[in-house]
Amino acid sequence: MTAMETAPAITTAPLWPRGFTAASVSAGIKSSGAPDMALLRMDAGASAAAMFTTNQFAAAPIQASRRNLRDSRGHCSALIINSGCANAATGAEGAADAESIIDAVAAACDCAPAAVLTNSTGVIGKRLPIHSMLKAIPALAAACTDGSCEPFERGIMTTDTQPKMSTRTVAAADGGTIRVTGVAKGAGMIHPNMATMIVAITTDAEATPAELDGMLRHAVDRSFHRISIDGDTSTNDAVFAFASGQAGAPADRKALQKALDEVAGDLARAVVQDGEGFTRGLEVRVRGAASAEDALLLARTVATSTLVRCAVTGGDPNWGRIVAAAGRSGAKLDPESLVVRTGGLTLFKDGAPVTVDKAAVEKAFAQPNVVVELDVGLGAGSDFFLSSGLTEAYVRLNADYTT
Amino acid sequence: MTAMETAPAITTAPLWPRGFTAASVSAGIKSSGAPDMALLRMDAGASAAAMFTTNQFAAAPIQASRRNLRDSRGHCSALIINSGCANAATGAEGAADAESIIDAVAAACDCAPAAVLTNSTGVIGKRLPIHSMLKAIPALAAACTDGSCEPFERGIMTTDTQPKMSTRTVAAADGGTIRVTGVAKGAGMIHPNMATMIVAITTDAEATPAELDGMLRHAVDRSFHRISIDGDTSTNDAVFAFASGQAGAPADRKALQKALDEVAGDLARAVVQDGEGFTRGLEVRVRGAASAEDALLLARTVATSTLVRCAVTGGDPNWGRIVAAAGRSGAKLDPESLVVRTGGLTLFKDGAPVTVDKAAVEKAFAQPNVVVELDVGLGAGSDFFLSSGLTEAYVRLNADYTT
Repeated sequence: MTAMETAPAITTAPLWPRGFTAASVSAGIKSSGAPDMALLRMDAGASAAAMFTTNQFAAAPIQASRRNLRDSRGHCSALIINSGCANAATGAEGAADAESIIDAVAAACDCAPAAVLTNSTGVIGKRLPIHSMLKAIPALAAACTDGSCEPFERGIMTTDTQPKMSTRTVAAADGGTIRVTGVAKGAGMIHPNMATMIVAITTDAEATPAELDGMLRHAVDRSFHRISIDGDTSTNDAVFAFASGQAGAPADRKALQKALDEVAGDLARAVVQDGEGFTRGLEVRVRGAASAEDALLLARTVATSTLVRCAVTGGDPNWGRIVAAAGRSGAKLDPESLVVRTGGLTLFKDGAPVTVDKAAVEKAFAQPNVVVELDVGLGAGSDFFLSSGLTEAYVRLNADYTT
Repeated sequence: MTAMETAPAITTAPLWPRGFTAASVSAGIKSSGAPDMALLRMDAGASAAAMFTTNQFAAAPIQASRRNLRDSRGHCSALIINSGCANAATGAEGAADAESIIDAVAAACDCAPAAVLTNSTGVIGKRLPIHSMLKAIPALAAACTDGSCEPFERGIMTTDTQPKMSTRTVAAADGGTIRVTGVAKGAGMIHPNMATMIVAITTDAEATPAELDGMLRHAVDRSFHRISIDGDTSTNDAVFAFASGQAGAPADRKALQKALDEVAGDLARAVVQDGEGFTRGLEVRVRGAASAEDALLLARTVATSTLVRCAVTGGDPNWGRIVAAAGRSGAKLDPESLVVRTGGLTLFKDGAPVTVDKAAVEKAFAQPNVVVELDVGLGAGSDFFLSSGLTEAYVRLNADYTT
C-alpha cells in the first residue's frame, strides 16, 4: 500500500524535470475561452511509455498514439493534448483529424510524426474544430518554456475543480537530484459526457523505453488501478510517462521507482478527491485473503458498492452493507473468520456483530476519509481500493446535463 | 424476451391456487405495528423448489431452508416469512432462532420440521424478537384462509410502496383451470439496510419437485436474473415455487411454463418499478451479439452503468455514454458494425454518430420506460436487461438512514 498511503503532496506549481518544456493556449474548443490545448515538448527526445484505455471504443487519438509509440519504439519528442472534445466515436473523419494534429505538431517541433503522442478529452461523438487547432499549433510550440507545469495542467482540465500535480526528487549518483513530476486531469468517466482521465508523468532520469514501461506499470497498478468513481471506463483514458535522461547521472532504480509510485499515488488520490460531487473518501484495506486476487476483488467490491458508498455519504456506520458486499464479491470467505474494523473499532467478528460504542463508530464513519478494514483470516493476500461516497450532487450533475 | 415484454398484470388481489391458505399478523417486529409475519400453508403437501442468494453471508433462515428443501426432497407444508429483521450475520444465536421458528410452525401445522421453509427480511445483524414471534405462531396458523393473497403479501413487505402480485390461469386437461399466483417484495438490496428480495410462486398444477425446479429456473432466468437496481446482492434473496397438484387434472407443460414465466416477469418488472427513488425505467435490448453470453454482458453493462442511469433520470439522449459502456463490457464489438437505436431513431451507425432530430430523441429519452436497442452485427446472440434511472432520491434515502 506504499503508494496510496502517502499523503497528497500537491504544490501549486511543481517544476518540470530537465529536458521538458510546455505551454497551453486557448484554441477555441471550450466556449469559456479557457486554455484547451496543451503541448509538452522533449526536443532532445525522451523514452516514452503509456497505458491506454481498454475500452473497445478507444478514441482516434488513443489509436494514433498506440501506433506511434510502437512505430517509434518508445521514443518521443512531443505530447499534444486538447480538452473540451474527446474525438471519440467520430469515425474516419475523427481519425483524419488526429493525424492532422500529429503532422502539424511534428512540423512545428521539427520531429518525425511517430515521435508525437496525442490525446483528447471532452464530449464524445463531436468533431474537433480542426482548423482553429491547426492554426494555433505553431504559436503553441513557440511558447513552450521550462519551469512550472501548471500552464500545461490547466490546458488539459475539463470540469476539474483544481489542478492535480505532484513531484518528487531522487538523489542522483553524482550528488545532484533527479526530478519526477506528474500531472493529471479528470476522475474516471465521472463528468457529463466527459471521457476522461489523462495523466503525464515526466522525469529527467535516464531509462530505456522498456525500463520506463516496467516502472510505469508498477506505479499504475498500485494507484490508478485502485481507484473508482463510478465504474465507467472512458474511451480516452491514458497514462503517459516520459524520461528525458538529462539529469546526467544515474539514479538508484529502487528510489526512482518509489518516486514514480508516490507521484502516481498522489495523483490517483487527487483524482478521487476531485471527483464530481465529492464529499468524503472511502478506503477499503483487505488483509488475510486466500489470495492476492481475492484481496483485490474484496477491496474493489466493497469500495464500489452503491449501498456502502451511500452509507459513507451519510456518515452511517452501516457494517451490514459491508458484510453483504464482501459476501457477493466472489472471493473466498468464511463468515466465522472475517473481522471488519473501522477507525480501530471492531464491528464484526466470529460470525456475529460486536457491540460497540455507537458514538465512536459514528465518528469513524464521519471522517473526511472513511477507512474500512477487512481481515479475512484465510491467507496472506492483501490489497486496497479507494473510492468515495455516492452523493446527490453526483447524480444531479450527471442527470441534469443536456447534450 | 417473452417473459419481460408482457405488460404487468397485477390485480389488487389475485387468488391463491387450490391447496394454499395464508395469513399474516403483527408480531411486534416492525415498530409501526404493520403486519410483519406471514404464513403460507399447504396442508396436503406441495412440491417445492427454491433459488437462494449466492451471497456467502447467506442468512440463517436461508441456510435452514436450503437444508430442509434437501432433507424433504422438495416436499413442503408451510412457508413462514417475517419482515423487519433479516436474521443475517447473527451467528449461532440467529441460527437457533430460525430453528425455533421452524419447530413452532411445524407444531402448529402438524407437519415435520423439514417440511417448513422460512425466510426473513429487514435489518442485517440484529436478532429477531423470538419470544413474541413464537407466541404469535399458533394464532397465525389458525387464521390461514384461502382466497386473496394480499394479506400474505402485506406481511412480507418492508419499505415497498405497493404490494406486488401476479396471477395467470392455464387450461387443464379436464376443461377446468389451473392457477399460477406469485407474490414478491423488495427490489434487490435497494432499501436502507434491507436484505431483501423474496418471491413466492404457487400453482395448483401437479409437478414433481424436480419438474418444478426446472420450470422455476427457466422462469427466473428471464425475469429476476435480468433486473438490477443497484448491483448489490442481499444476504436474504430467495425465490420459492410450490405446486399443490390439487387442480385434479394435468396441464399442458408448455402452457404451465408460459404462465410461470409470465408471473415471474410481471413480478420482476414490478420489483424494478417499486425500486427506491424510481422515476423512470430503462430497458436495454441487444441482438446480433457474437454469442448469447456477450448479449447478456452488453445488456447488463449498459443497463447498470451509473452514467447511463443518470442520463435516463435526466431524460438526456446521451448516446456517448451508451457506446462507452458497451465498449468496456468485455463483449466482442466492432465499432463499425454496432448500431444504437432508441424509440425507433438510429443514433450511432458505421462507427460514427447519426444526425437526428433533437426533439425526437429527447422525447424517446423522456419516456416512462426508456428502451435502448443495440444491434451488434456480429452474430445471433440476443438478450435484454431491465433497470431504472439513478435518482437523487435513491442516494438521499440510502445516505440519510442511520442505524
